[in-house]
Amino acid sequence: MNRRRRVFEGKGKIMYEGPEPGTLIQFFKDDAFSADSAATGIIDGKGVLNNRISEYVFGHLNTIGIPTHFIRRLNMREQLVREVEMIPLIISVRNVAAGSLARRLGLEEGTPLPRSIVEFFLNAEELGNPLVTEEHITAFGWATPPELDDIMALAIRINDFLTGLFLGAGIQLVDFKIECGRLYEGDMMRIILADEISPDSCRLADLSTHERLDRDASAANPGDLFRAYSEVARRLGIMNENEPARAAGPVLVK
Amino acid sequence: MNRRRRVFEGKGKIMYEGPEPGTLIQFFKDDAFSADSAATGIIDGKGVLNNRISEYVFGHLNTIGIPTHFIRRLNMREQLVREVEMIPLIISVRNVAAGSLARRLGLEEGTPLPRSIVEFFLNAEELGNPLVTEEHITAFGWATPPELDDIMALAIRINDFLTGLFLGAGIQLVDFKIECGRLYEGDMMRIILADEISPDSCRLADLSTHERLDRDASAANPGDLFRAYSEVARRLGIMNENEPARAAGPVLVK
Repeated sequence: MNRRRRVFEGKGKIMYEGPEPGTLIQFFKDDAFSADSAATGIIDGKGVLNNRISEYVFGHLNTIGIPTHFIRRLNMREQLVREVEMIPLIISVRNVAAGSLARRLGLEEGTPLPRSIVEFFLNAEELGNPLVTEEHITAFGWATPPELDDIMALAIRINDFLTGLFLGAGIQLVDFKIECGRLYEGDMMRIILADEISPDSCRLADLSTHERLDRDASAANPGDLFRAYSEVARRLGIMNENEPARAAGPVLVK
Repeated sequence: MNRRRRVFEGKGKIMYEGPEPGTLIQFFKDDAFSADSAATGIIDGKGVLNNRISEYVFGHLNTIGIPTHFIRRLNMREQLVREVEMIPLIISVRNVAAGSLARRLGLEEGTPLPRSIVEFFLNAEELGNPLVTEEHITAFGWATPPELDDIMALAIRINDFLTGLFLGAGIQLVDFKIECGRLYEGDMMRIILADEISPDSCRLADLSTHERLDRDASAANPGDLFRAYSEVARRLGIMNENEPARAAGPVLVK
C-alpha cells in the first residue's frame, strides 16, 4: 500500500519523497518526547494537531514574506513541502529564561531576558545537540557567515511574528526552535525555514495562569499534553471543536 | 608583616593592592588544579616558574604591540601589573581538538582543527564556567560587540605569537586561555590582556614525543608537573639551570 520512498525519519516526523522533484511529504507522527529528547509515549492525535498548527503558522509566515518550505497541507497528517538541503543546526530563540539556558547560566526559570537571545545547537542527537558558537559553525563549515546572518534575521522575524500571534491568543512565547535549509533555484540559493512550528518546538505558557501549553505540559499526565496542544489550536482558531483530531488515522497520498 | 590589602584570590594567584593607584601586585601560588578546576595539591615552585614564564610572554607581547597589564616582575613570585576592570569571560583559543571541545563535538583528541577557534566561557566557577556565545555576552552586557571584536583580534594575535614562540622551542600549542580587562586612561578605554600565560593556562605538547608539558602532565604523578613546567621554562631559555625555582619562598614587597 505504501510504496513511497522514506527519505528521513525523525522523532516527530517522517519525510517521504514528494509527487514531483524538489518536493517532499512531511508526515506528523504521534510520538511524544520531552525537552531533553527522551521518548515519553504515543499521544493519539498529536500529529494531527501539529500538522494543523504548523500549517497555520507557516502559511502566515509565507504571507508576510518569510520564506518557508511549506507548500500546502495534504491531509490530516501530511504536508507537501519543498525539499531543501538541511543546515545541521537547531536554532533556538529565547524570550524568557527556561530549560538549558536557565541551568547553564544559573538563571531562575521564568526570568525575562534583557533581550531575545538566539542560540545555535548542533543537530547531533548522539552528542546531546550541544550548544555551538558562530566560531564552531563557520570553522567546521556547517554554515557560512552570510548564511548565519540570514538565519539570524529569519529567526528574529519569526520571533516577532510568533510573539504577536501567541500574545493575541493569551499565550506567552517563552522560546522556540527552528531548523533551516538551503533552497536552490537555478543559480540562486536562499535560506528558508523548514521543519515545523508547533507546541513540540515552542515553550508556551498561558498568559494569566502561567500553565504550560507545550510538550512539558505532560510532565504530570500524558493526557495533559493532548489537552494543552488542543487548547493552543483552539485559541488560534484552527481546530473546529466538532472536528476530531483523535481517531483520524494517516491518510496516505496516492 | 604582610599589611597589603588583598584585592582578590583565585585558584593560582592572589592580587594585592599595588604601590601606587592603578597598579596591583600579582602573586603566583603553588596550588595545582586539573583542567576541570579540581585542586590537585601544592607543587612547590610552580608559582615561581609561572611568574617567570608569564613575565617572558607578556614582556614580548608588550614589545610587539599587544597591550597587557604586565609592568615588571618584582621578585620570584610577584609581578607589578596595571589594575583593569576584568571582563567576566575566559577566552579560549584552540588549534587542535582537546578537552571540552573534543567531548562536546565528538572529535578525537589531537585532531587538528580546520582553523583556530575562539571560544568564550563565562568566568563563573559555581556554574562550571559554561560556554557562552556572542548573543549571551552582548544580551547580558558582559561585553559590547566592539569589545568582543577587540578581544577576538587580541586573542588571534596572541595565538599567532604563541604558536611561533612554542614551535621554536619544539612545543605544539594545542590551546590556551586568557582573560582580558578594560584599562581606563583619561577618557579612553581599551581592552588589554590581563591574568597570566603559563603552562597553567596552555595545553602544550612536545612536538616529537607528543608528551604533555602542561598541567595535565601531572595526571600520573604530581612530580611530573614540576618537571614539565621546568622543561617549558628551560626550552624558552628563561630559567638558568643553576637557579632554583624550588625552595624560593615568597619575597614580599615592602
